[in-house]
Amino acid sequence: GRTGIPEMILAEGKTPEETAALAVLAVETTERAIITRTDAPTANEVEECVIEEHPDAVIEHAERTETIVVYSPAFEPPSLDADIGIVTAGTSDAVPAGEAATIAREMGARVTRIDDVGVAGLARLIDRLDDCRAQDVLIIAAGREGALPTVAAGLVDVPLIGLPVSNGYGYGGDGEAALAGMLQSCTPITVVNIDAGVTAGAQAGLIARALDAARAE
Amino acid sequence: GRTGIPEMILAEGKTPEETAALAVLAVETTERAIITRTDAPTANEVEECVIEEHPDAVIEHAERTETIVVYSPAFEPPSLDADIGIVTAGTSDAVPAGEAATIAREMGARVTRIDDVGVAGLARLIDRLDDCRAQDVLIIAAGREGALPTVAAGLVDVPLIGLPVSNGYGYGGDGEAALAGMLQSCTPITVVNIDAGVTAGAQAGLIARALDAARAE
Amino acid sequence: GRTGIPEMILAEGKTPEETAALAVLAVETTERAIITRTDAPTANEVEECVIEEHPDAVIEHAERTETIVVYSPAFEPPSLDADIGIVTAGTSDAVPAGEAATIAREMGARVTRIDDVGVAGLARLIDRLDDCRAQDVLIIAAGREGALPTVAAGLVDVPLIGLPVSNGYGYGGDGEAALAGMLQSCTPITVVNIDAGVTAGAQAGLIARALDAARAE
Amino acid sequence: GRTGIPEMILAEGKTPEETAALAVLAVETTERAIITRTDAPTANEVEECVIEEHPDAVIEHAERTETIVVYSPAFEPPSLDADIGIVTAGTSDAVPAGEAATIAREMGARVTRIDDVGVAGLARLIDRLDDCRAQDVLIIAAGREGALPTVAAGLVDVPLIGLPVSNGYGYGGDGEAALAGMLQSCTPITVVNIDAGVTAGAQAGLIARALDAARAE
Amino acid sequence: GRTGIPEMILAEGKTPEETAALAVLAVETTERAIITRTDAPTANEVEECVIEEHPDAVIEHAERTETIVVYSPAFEPPSLDADIGIVTAGTSDAVPAGEAATIAREMGARVTRIDDVGVAGLARLIDRLDDCRAQDVLIIAAGREGALPTVAAGLVDVPLIGLPVSNGYGYGGDGEAALAGMLQSCTPITVVNIDAGVTAGAQAGLIARALDAARAE
Amino acid sequence: GRTGIPEMILAEGKTPEETAALAVLAVETTERAIITRTDAPTANEVEECVIEEHPDAVIEHAERTETIVVYSPAFEPPSLDADIGIVTAGTSDAVPAGEAATIAREMGARVTRIDDVGVAGLARLIDRLDDCRAQDVLIIAAGREGALPTVAAGLVDVPLIGLPVSNGYGYGGDGEAALAGMLQSCTPITVVNIDAGVTAGAQAGLIARALDAARAE
Amino acid sequence: GRTGIPEMILAEGKTPEETAALAVLAVETTERAIITRTDAPTANEVEECVIEEHPDAVIEHAERTETIVVYSPAFEPPSLDADIGIVTAGTSDAVPAGEAATIAREMGARVTRIDDVGVAGLARLIDRLDDCRAQDVLIIAAGREGALPTVAAGLVDVPLIGLPVSNGYGYGGDGEAALAGMLQSCTPITVVNIDAGVTAGAQAGLIARALDAARAE
Amino acid sequence: GRTGIPEMILAEGKTPEETAALAVLAVETTERAIITRTDAPTANEVEECVIEEHPDAVIEHAERTETIVVYSPAFEPPSLDADIGIVTAGTSDAVPAGEAATIAREMGARVTRIDDVGVAGLARLIDRLDDCRAQDVLIIAAGREGALPTVAAGLVDVPLIGLPVSNGYGYGGDGEAALAGMLQSCTPITVVNIDAGVTAGAQAGLIARALDAARAE
Ligand SMILES: Nc1ncnc2c1ncn2[C@@H]1O[C@H](COP(=O)(O)O)[C@@H](O)[C@H]1O
Ligand SMILES: Nc1ncnc2c1ncn2[C@@H]1O[C@H](COP(=O)(O)O)[C@@H](O)[C@H]1O
Ligand SMILES: Nc1ncnc2c1ncn2[C@@H]1O[C@H](COP(=O)(O)O)[C@@H](O)[C@H]1O
Ligand SMILES: Nc1ncnc2c1ncn2[C@@H]1O[C@H](COP(=O)(O)O)[C@@H](O)[C@H]1O
Ligand SMILES: [Mg+2]
Ligand SMILES: [Mg+2]
Ligand SMILES: [Mg+2]
Ligand SMILES: [Mg+2]
Ligand SMILES: [Mg+2]
Ligand SMILES: [Mg+2]
Ligand SMILES: [Mg+2]
Ligand SMILES: [Mg+2]
Repeated sequence: GRTGIPEMILAEGKTPEETAALAVLAVETTERAIITRTDAPTANEVEECVIEEHPDAVIEHAERTETIVVYSPAFEPPSLDADIGIVTAGTSDAVPAGEAATIAREMGARVTRIDDVGVAGLARLIDRLDDCRAQDVLIIAAGREGALPTVAAGLVDVPLIGLPVSNGYGYGGDGEAALAGMLQSCTPITVVNIDAGVTAGAQAGLIARALDAARAE
Repeated sequence: GRTGIPEMILAEGKTPEETAALAVLAVETTERAIITRTDAPTANEVEECVIEEHPDAVIEHAERTETIVVYSPAFEPPSLDADIGIVTAGTSDAVPAGEAATIAREMGARVTRIDDVGVAGLARLIDRLDDCRAQDVLIIAAGREGALPTVAAGLVDVPLIGLPVSNGYGYGGDGEAALAGMLQSCTPITVVNIDAGVTAGAQAGLIARALDAARAE
Repeated sequence: GRTGIPEMILAEGKTPEETAALAVLAVETTERAIITRTDAPTANEVEECVIEEHPDAVIEHAERTETIVVYSPAFEPPSLDADIGIVTAGTSDAVPAGEAATIAREMGARVTRIDDVGVAGLARLIDRLDDCRAQDVLIIAAGREGALPTVAAGLVDVPLIGLPVSNGYGYGGDGEAALAGMLQSCTPITVVNIDAGVTAGAQAGLIARALDAARAE
Repeated sequence: GRTGIPEMILAEGKTPEETAALAVLAVETTERAIITRTDAPTANEVEECVIEEHPDAVIEHAERTETIVVYSPAFEPPSLDADIGIVTAGTSDAVPAGEAATIAREMGARVTRIDDVGVAGLARLIDRLDDCRAQDVLIIAAGREGALPTVAAGLVDVPLIGLPVSNGYGYGGDGEAALAGMLQSCTPITVVNIDAGVTAGAQAGLIARALDAARAE
Repeated sequence: GRTGIPEMILAEGKTPEETAALAVLAVETTERAIITRTDAPTANEVEECVIEEHPDAVIEHAERTETIVVYSPAFEPPSLDADIGIVTAGTSDAVPAGEAATIAREMGARVTRIDDVGVAGLARLIDRLDDCRAQDVLIIAAGREGALPTVAAGLVDVPLIGLPVSNGYGYGGDGEAALAGMLQSCTPITVVNIDAGVTAGAQAGLIARALDAARAE
Repeated sequence: GRTGIPEMILAEGKTPEETAALAVLAVETTERAIITRTDAPTANEVEECVIEEHPDAVIEHAERTETIVVYSPAFEPPSLDADIGIVTAGTSDAVPAGEAATIAREMGARVTRIDDVGVAGLARLIDRLDDCRAQDVLIIAAGREGALPTVAAGLVDVPLIGLPVSNGYGYGGDGEAALAGMLQSCTPITVVNIDAGVTAGAQAGLIARALDAARAE
Repeated sequence: GRTGIPEMILAEGKTPEETAALAVLAVETTERAIITRTDAPTANEVEECVIEEHPDAVIEHAERTETIVVYSPAFEPPSLDADIGIVTAGTSDAVPAGEAATIAREMGARVTRIDDVGVAGLARLIDRLDDCRAQDVLIIAAGREGALPTVAAGLVDVPLIGLPVSNGYGYGGDGEAALAGMLQSCTPITVVNIDAGVTAGAQAGLIARALDAARAE
Repeated sequence: GRTGIPEMILAEGKTPEETAALAVLAVETTERAIITRTDAPTANEVEECVIEEHPDAVIEHAERTETIVVYSPAFEPPSLDADIGIVTAGTSDAVPAGEAATIAREMGARVTRIDDVGVAGLARLIDRLDDCRAQDVLIIAAGREGALPTVAAGLVDVPLIGLPVSNGYGYGGDGEAALAGMLQSCTPITVVNIDAGVTAGAQAGLIARALDAARAE
């Protein structure tokens, strides 16, 4: 199997019982369980089952981000010599940005958050350009028209993953305007699905892993 | 009837003969004919018919823009004390931008072109900000992801009409990404249909007319 | 920064706590907070936080319109010598029309409401044509097939912003028929996103500001 | 089989040879062939084959409408005591309107054309209201935003079939804006597919037939 | 105004209070109120208000159909010498079919219901063909693939209105498959929007009115 | 590798040279080449190359169907004890139906064509029901609203594959109405992509192969 | 009527009372009722009515699958000498896979479940290839990108029905990505609608019935 | 300005003269011009203008890939210590794969092509897994259902960019099935627009540049 990206359990589409059973199994086989898109009943069920089966496990539940990570005492966290910057246009990009941060950290990268630099006020972005340039990879989350990664990619020369967010309303308001804009971007960027923080975090993590290895050569 | 916006003939969907007959009629009833979206056979037919019927008319044919304007000798061009800026992101925005310029000029406004300031190179836009701010209204044409009007509207405080352009390719490449992005823009702008330079020019012209009247009060 | 359009907080996609914190901050930095798309829990949270932090602030909550405006005692409302007309086709256009009215008023324009003049009964529109013609700018809200701005633009010569509304049902019933119809309108009009009263109000406000300045020249 | 609607041959999607063979067969079995959507090679092939097989047949080829009707000498045209009005918004609605007229006439109805009454100039429609009201059924063809049938249905009380036309450009420009608008119409109308003049003509013909029978009762 | 189609109040998109006020007004001005798409709170509010203002009014509430009709004692029901057949493919077509029946009856037509004759069991349709042929107009409601009006139109020669229903699931399951199928029908039929029983009933009613007049000539 | 379905070369998206080279290779490795979607230049190139490299090969070119099959003298055609019926609604379904027939025959099945039984004239289908019932599998090709497989599946109890065809025009006219209708069918059928005769033929062929084996048990 | 596929009642779009009445009727006329897509109130109503009317009936309610089957004591289950394999990519494919299994079993086939072999871990699929190859037909349920049937069809030579599942999120996340991928599959497969386990089960059942008959020849 | 990604000229949407002028300018300012999407007239015009203005320039025209690169004698090609693998599913993925290879090479990376490993024959992919694993980044081009990057990402742990290709036909055949499938992929990958080889190449180039720098640390 692959070792680069840790197993993650997507709670959506599963019953709380199914998710909890998969979480317990993951802790037993990999010393860690990462669960995303957890609603309240799922979170409860997971926490209860884990505590019952593994009373010594550590449970971290990020409510706003809807992710849970469970560590067995035996878990040894990876550590990579590489920086991932996670940039948001505004407050409502928090959930997928948080999902991306969780995965990136679990893969061992150093994560820097650069928040609220949407293109409506370009000065905020300009102020943080040096922070952006100091990263090895950038994940940029933006909803509505999703212009932020396009503009940033014109100013910064690091690999850049656009993460479209399903805020906004009306025509294209479910994130399709942001997705389409990032795919059409006149500055070349790669893209993940709408709200797919996990995917962005995992690919950024793979790049971080490659850089860590290169630095160690 | 309305007097604010001059009659315009859309050649698409008409035979060359139909368009030419409408052009001759317009010259006879309003001293001017404005024809847009003229392909080569239509342009020929229009020119031939006009010359035959009105040998003293002046014909202006902008080939790249695919517009023709015919003036009878009796035509008295309007003149408004107001400035319309027409901004393009890149070379491939020329056709609808030119269409908008034609209508704005025919309504009597002063027109300034500000070209090639797409967001891939933000410095070009920053360089022209004073020119943008000196206008009474801005029409901003952009294709691909269409981010330029969003970014400009964050920097300039004049009424602003976004004009999405059907370049680009792949998902949303027929101008729908640009249209969706402008409709979702996190900075408030109004929008016209994809490639609808005529519509943008006519509404900008109405604002110019209102300002001209206000200045004359 | 821009001074033309006041800061507005879109509550959708934010937690009540996030919205309330942004509202308090806006009052402290700009003497006013404008919040749109507030559901009941958000409205409560905003009112509680504002009262706690700024007991002397004035809170205006328009429930049907789902907007809240908070004024600090120090706030000096702007005043523009310009008229914005806000027209609705029917009762169900009330929410976005109200949003547009809020923004237009907060920018200082005089606002006139012209309601229930949908094209199903053309006589109602004809009756109000003089009122329409007396405005400097028109915002016209219509759902279903959204024909009202098209018809009005054939009868009135002022700048006109079409505001498509997400009522209706079946094919195109989420406002897309109205949006598409306004973009395709055979009379030239500018358009904003479905239900985007804020955008329509802000652009109409910028035109009003320009006219106010021109009148003062 | 049905006797109400005559057999019609849709040339699109068939080879010229296939269409011509079907036309000859129709003449032989029903004394008449009605062929729609004929491009030039198909028209040639049909004319050649018919002349070869049935030198005494009468061929009517409406080029703009892209229809051909062939009558054998034995054909006895039906005649109905009922009026179908076919209304167009503009010049570019000619093809489907012509198709509808052909079918309506072949079914025996009296057909009145009411052209160029699009909503951009409402006066033209008002001028022709009495003509509209004098019909037993109305077919109203309109492209772009397709508002004409909606407006007319608010003014006239006869059964009304909206016929959306695929002119226009950009978003919804292939006739989908017109179709969506007619389906969403706030005045109740029935609708046929984009450019489906044949369908509109046939259903109007069935209503005419029913009225003819009722008048004969 | 038009007299052919009675005023109807669409409750969707209005508050219960707004709908109730419109209902009372309709009773006072036209002796009758027809309200469609009424959810439970709206129905309660309407019934309460009507009873309070007009204790002698008769209220008919068809719960499955979600329509309410209120008659003042002075109301004189119209009566037309014409038959409208309302056909359904299956049980889940009941709501829009009922809406159509309500409008058709309120316009004075005789209404016959022909239920459960979907194309999965063609024998059921064949059994009822004589009933279908005895009608002056047919409204045929069908969801899923919506094939029933296409098949019926090949067997019956009366004017026919297809009414697509939003049952089904997956691709096109919101009624778009049925709508598209009816628009593409290889037998010519007219169509109304998805679930638009009101529109189908009103147009069928206009045809009935025309036939009634013709029979009276 | 799989042995059930023969290798097929899709010429679309390849240069004529690339297709011809693949054809020659297929003849050399499998004694047969099946090429679909061949335009004229591709067909020429394939024929020339094959003749040059394998002068003794047999080339069958079905022009209407746009398929070419090349057999080396050593090829031993398979033969299955199973019947595949290929049904079409009308003339314009010929291309994908022909593609399906080619693949089914190359897999060794007996193929029966049942043509022109579209639902507009139900009698034609009823006439051929016994032929349909005599098959082991049915492939039913239909365009426009695509109702034929739905109706047939209500009358015949053999496995049935719906093959939607891209004829028709307007809304859903590129085969999407037929595809959606077949997917939504109220009688259970399986479906392949629009115009995917190859896919239908190959799956029908696999069923035939399974039946042949069962009969031989 | 058809005898191959048993009657099934789709509870969606019906009231619990309507569904229960149809269930009782089915038990009375066919000794069995199969009901799918039952929510809790429907399940209760069905169980209550059946028990009241037929106290000796056996009721099987599969909650996760949302199906109910009722057998009268007189019911004689069919039995076919044929194997249907039902394969899932992951846990969240359980509902439609279960629906397919119910129908397949009710038609008399032997059913084998092969679960959790999604393409993210190809080894799991490879491990189960022999099980797959031992089936007479395969139904393969997969959501997200829906790649599993494509990959399996390249490895296994039995008739294969792809069953797209509406899990996933963002662009195409309602099952449309999976549906589109299966329709475009570069290995030929047939497909049913999104979540249409019933359709897949019924067609697989027809193939099983044909094989059973062939084996009995 | 950015230095990471070289300037590229997209010929689509520009006249040949405009493209040629931009190419000459690029040679003069950056010693190199990279032009993509060149049709024959554009290629001719570019070659003529370059030769006229810079007779000593080297012109490389990749016809199948539709790209032209012009080098002035002074150009010093960059060289990076990093490997980019470009993988294709089949022959028809050649154009965007070639575009990606051109950009990657012009940025200085070593490029390895791994062709014809589509999932229809999984053995071909398995055979090349070691080659895939030896790369620093993978670009994987696939059309139709686009499953190849999903499957490869489950087997290989390097950063991976999916490049959807617009081959295929019918539903989603313009590359949208492949795009949707890659965005929904159950193994995390990043994605670029349909046919956007340039974007994939440029982002892979940025990763290569970062690795080159890390290796040099
Ligand atoms: N939030 C998420 N977004 C996208 N993919 C996810 C998410 N969480 C888990 N996954 C992936 O989804 C794949 C399928 O998940 P499962 O349904 O749990 O088998 C797993 O391989 C996970 O890597
Ligand atoms: N169920 C319905 N479906 C479609 N249109 C309706 C329905 N009920 C009422 N209407 C029409 O919708 C139009 C707009 O309604 P209103 O929003 O009440 O002004 C009215 O003219 C009614 O004729
Ligand atoms: N007309 C067609 N429609 C769909 N698939 C096809 C067609 N012709 C060949 N194929 C299949 O397409 C797959 C990919 O083809 P290729 O691009 O030639 O590698 C092959 O495995 C063929 O089985
Ligand atoms: N084939 C291509 N696909 C996508 N982007 C491109 C392509 N070729 C050039 N570009 C980019 O498109 C942007 C806009 O190009 P232009 O229209 O030439 O100003 C440039 O910054 C290029 O980087
Ligand atoms: Mg943004
Ligand atoms: Mg741009
Ligand atoms: Mg309206
Ligand atoms: Mg019109
Ligand atoms: Mg049906
Ligand atoms: Mg058909
Ligand atoms: Mg899968
Ligand atoms: Mg592939």
